[in-house]
Amino acid sequence: MSDGEPREPWAGLQCPVPRSAYPSVLLAHGGGGRLTQQLIEQVFLEAFRNPALEPLHDGAVLEIAGARVAISTDSFVVRPLFFPGGDIGSLAVHGTVNDLAMCGARPVALAAGFILEEGLPMADLTRIVSSMRVAAEAVGVPIVTGDTKVVDRGKGDGVFVHTTGIGLVPPGIDLSPRAARPGDAVLLSGSLAEHGIAVLSVREGLEFETSVVSDSAPLHDLAARILEVGGTALRVLRDPTRGGVASALNEIAAQSGVGMRLDEASVPVREEVRGACEILGFDPLYVANEGKCLAIVAPSAASAVLRAMREHPLGRDAAIVGTVLSEHPGRVFLRSRVGGTRVVDMLSGEQLPRIC
Amino acid sequence: MSDGEPREPWAGLQCPVPRSAYPSVLLAHGGGGRLTQQLIEQVFLEAFRNPALEPLHDGAVLEIAGARVAISTDSFVVRPLFFPGGDIGSLAVHGTVNDLAMCGARPVALAAGFILEEGLPMADLTRIVSSMRVAAEAVGVPIVTGDTKVVDRGKGDGVFVHTTGIGLVPPGIDLSPRAARPGDAVLLSGSLAEHGIAVLSVREGLEFETSVVSDSAPLHDLAARILEVGGTALRVLRDPTRGGVASALNEIAAQSGVGMRLDEASVPVREEVRGACEILGFDPLYVANEGKCLAIVAPSAASAVLRAMREHPLGRDAAIVGTVLSEHPGRVFLRSRVGGTRVVDMLSGEQLPRIC
Repeated sequence: MSDGEPREPWAGLQCPVPRSAYPSVLLAHGGGGRLTQQLIEQVFLEAFRNPALEPLHDGAVLEIAGARVAISTDSFVVRPLFFPGGDIGSLAVHGTVNDLAMCGARPVALAAGFILEEGLPMADLTRIVSSMRVAAEAVGVPIVTGDTKVVDRGKGDGVFVHTTGIGLVPPGIDLSPRAARPGDAVLLSGSLAEHGIAVLSVREGLEFETSVVSDSAPLHDLAARILEVGGTALRVLRDPTRGGVASALNEIAAQSGVGMRLDEASVPVREEVRGACEILGFDPLYVANEGKCLAIVAPSAASAVLRAMREHPLGRDAAIVGTVLSEHPGRVFLRSRVGGTRVVDMLSGEQLPRIC
Repeated sequence: MSDGEPREPWAGLQCPVPRSAYPSVLLAHGGGGRLTQQLIEQVFLEAFRNPALEPLHDGAVLEIAGARVAISTDSFVVRPLFFPGGDIGSLAVHGTVNDLAMCGARPVALAAGFILEEGLPMADLTRIVSSMRVAAEAVGVPIVTGDTKVVDRGKGDGVFVHTTGIGLVPPGIDLSPRAARPGDAVLLSGSLAEHGIAVLSVREGLEFETSVVSDSAPLHDLAARILEVGGTALRVLRDPTRGGVASALNEIAAQSGVGMRLDEASVPVREEVRGACEILGFDPLYVANEGKCLAIVAPSAASAVLRAMREHPLGRDAAIVGTVLSEHPGRVFLRSRVGGTRVVDMLSGEQLPRIC
C-alpha cells in the first residue's frame, strides 16, 4: 500500500486486498449478471483464491479419502416466500441438488441454515420446512444438520434459507465450465423463463391469461441419465438460474475461451411465458430457470443425449439450441428468427432481484 | 388431521406436520436456550428426522466412500459486524471450524454464503472477506465454494454470513453428546463469557474500566491435542456458544441421561468480565464463548487431558469444573462458592440476541 493512502484495518495482513469499483453494494450485485461476476472476481475470488474455488463452477469438487466429493452452497432470499410451483423451501432443496448434479455428482446429504425474522408466522415456517422435507425425500437425500438464527423485526425478510449439498462424483466424470470445445452442440433440457416469470407475477400482483408456474425441480436424475448416455463426450452441465441462459453461456464461453451461437427459433419458450415476457419487457434468455439444464456435448453424442433428455419427464421439450464456435472467444451470438445475428451479452444491471 | 381443523397447505403430503406452541417466531427462538431447543425439536427435527440429524450434535458425521466425513453449518447474524477481537467474517470461520473440531473432525474445506443488504459499504464487505481469508488461512482450510445474494435496503442488516464446514473424523474417534457417563470429569478450556460481553459492550456503547475482547479463536488444534491425549477416554467435546456453558451442559446431561455438578469456585472468569456481568445482570454461565471448549472425560484421563489443555496457548486457564452424576438425569447443579447448591437450568428466554 503506497504512502498517503488511508490505512485499511487489515493493512498489516499478508494477503491481497480485494477492491471493488463500487463504493457500496447494489441490488444488481446479486442479479447474476456482470456486476455479480465482478463482485465475485474482485472481492471473493481475490481474497479466497485457491485451486478448488477458481473454476467458479456451481460447486467445488474435492478429493477426500480417495473419493471425489462435490460441495455446493446457496443462500435463498426469494420474495415472496410462496409462489406458483413452489416456495423458498423446495427451491432451496432443488437449487442445491441441481448445483451438485451440474458438477456430475450424486447428492448424498444436505445441510440447512435458517435466518428467521422475529414475527414470522410459525405456520409459514412449518409450511416451508415441510416443503423442504418433501423435496428432499423425493430426491432421496437427507437433511443431516442445520442451524437457526433469529434477527429482529425489520432486519430480515421473513426467512432466508441457506442450503449446502454434499455429493459424490462417480469415477470417470470430469465436467468443467472450461471444457467446451469448438464444434460442440449446446443442448437445453426444456422451455425457458418459467421460474422468473412465476415469481415476478405473484410479487407484482400481475395476472396473465394463463398462470405461469415455476419449473423448480430436482435435476439429479436427468443429469445422471445425461452422464450415462454422454459419457466422456459430455463437457459441461449448467443450470441457467439467475441471469438465465444468456449469463450461463457467457460464463462458459469466457471460461472455455470459445464463442457460441444460439438459434432463436430452436430455443423452447412456452406461449404464455413469451407473452408475459413481452408485456414486461424481458428477454426470456435472461430470466431464471430452476428446473432446466444446459448440456454442452461433443457433436458425436449430441443426438443420443438429446434423445435421452426427451425420454425423461423433465426433458420432454429438450432441444439442440446452439453450437460452440472457435471464433469470437468469450462471446455469445443469437441468430434471430428473421435471420439477423446479434450479440447476447451478460446482463450488466439487475433484471429481476430476489428471484432465488 | 382431525375433521374441523383448518387444512394446512401441505395437508396431502405424507409426512408428520411440525407444530410449535408459538404462533410466530420470537427473538428468543434464536437465543440458544429452551425456546431454541423447542423450535429445533418441534419443527426442524420433526420434519427432517433422520439418523444423522437426530444426535443434534454440532455437526453430522456421515460415511462417505469408507471415510467419516463431518458436516457442520452455521448462519452468522452478529450485530455489530465488527467488535473487539473479531468481526462476522473471522467469527464465521472460527464458529464452523470449532463445530467440526467438536465432532472430532479435522477441517478440510469451508463453503461460504453471503446475504448482503443493498447499500452495505463495499469497504465493510472487503474487510470482512479479508478477515475470513486470514482466519481460514490460519487454520489451513480453503474456502472452496460460495454464493452471494443481495436483498433490498431494510430487508437485511448489512451482511449475514453462512459457513459450512467439511471435515474428516480420524478412525477410532467417536464423540457424542450422548456419551457422558457418571464419574466423568467436566473440563473447561478457559475463562468464560468474553465473546458475549465484548459484542454487547460495543453494541450498547458501554464502557468498562478494562475493555473486554472476544475470545473468538479456532479450536481445531486444541481439540486435536485433547483427542490425542484423551483417546477413547474422551466422551464429549462441545463449544459453549449461544446459551453458554449452562445450556451446553444441560443439553449433554439430557442427551446422556446423566446429572452434572459444577463447582463455581473452579469456573474461570476474568475479573473484568465478572464485573461487566454483575453490572449488566448476566450470569457468565449463560453468556456465549467462541474460543472455549468443554471436554467430558473418563476420570482416569482427566488430569492428563487437563495438562494437555494447559500446555496449549488456547487452554492456559483450563480447569476441571465439574463431575458427571448418576442421579438427577438431565439436570445440572452448581455448588456455589459459599457451599450452597442451586439448579443451573436452560435459559428459557432470550439473554443476548444476535451474539453470533
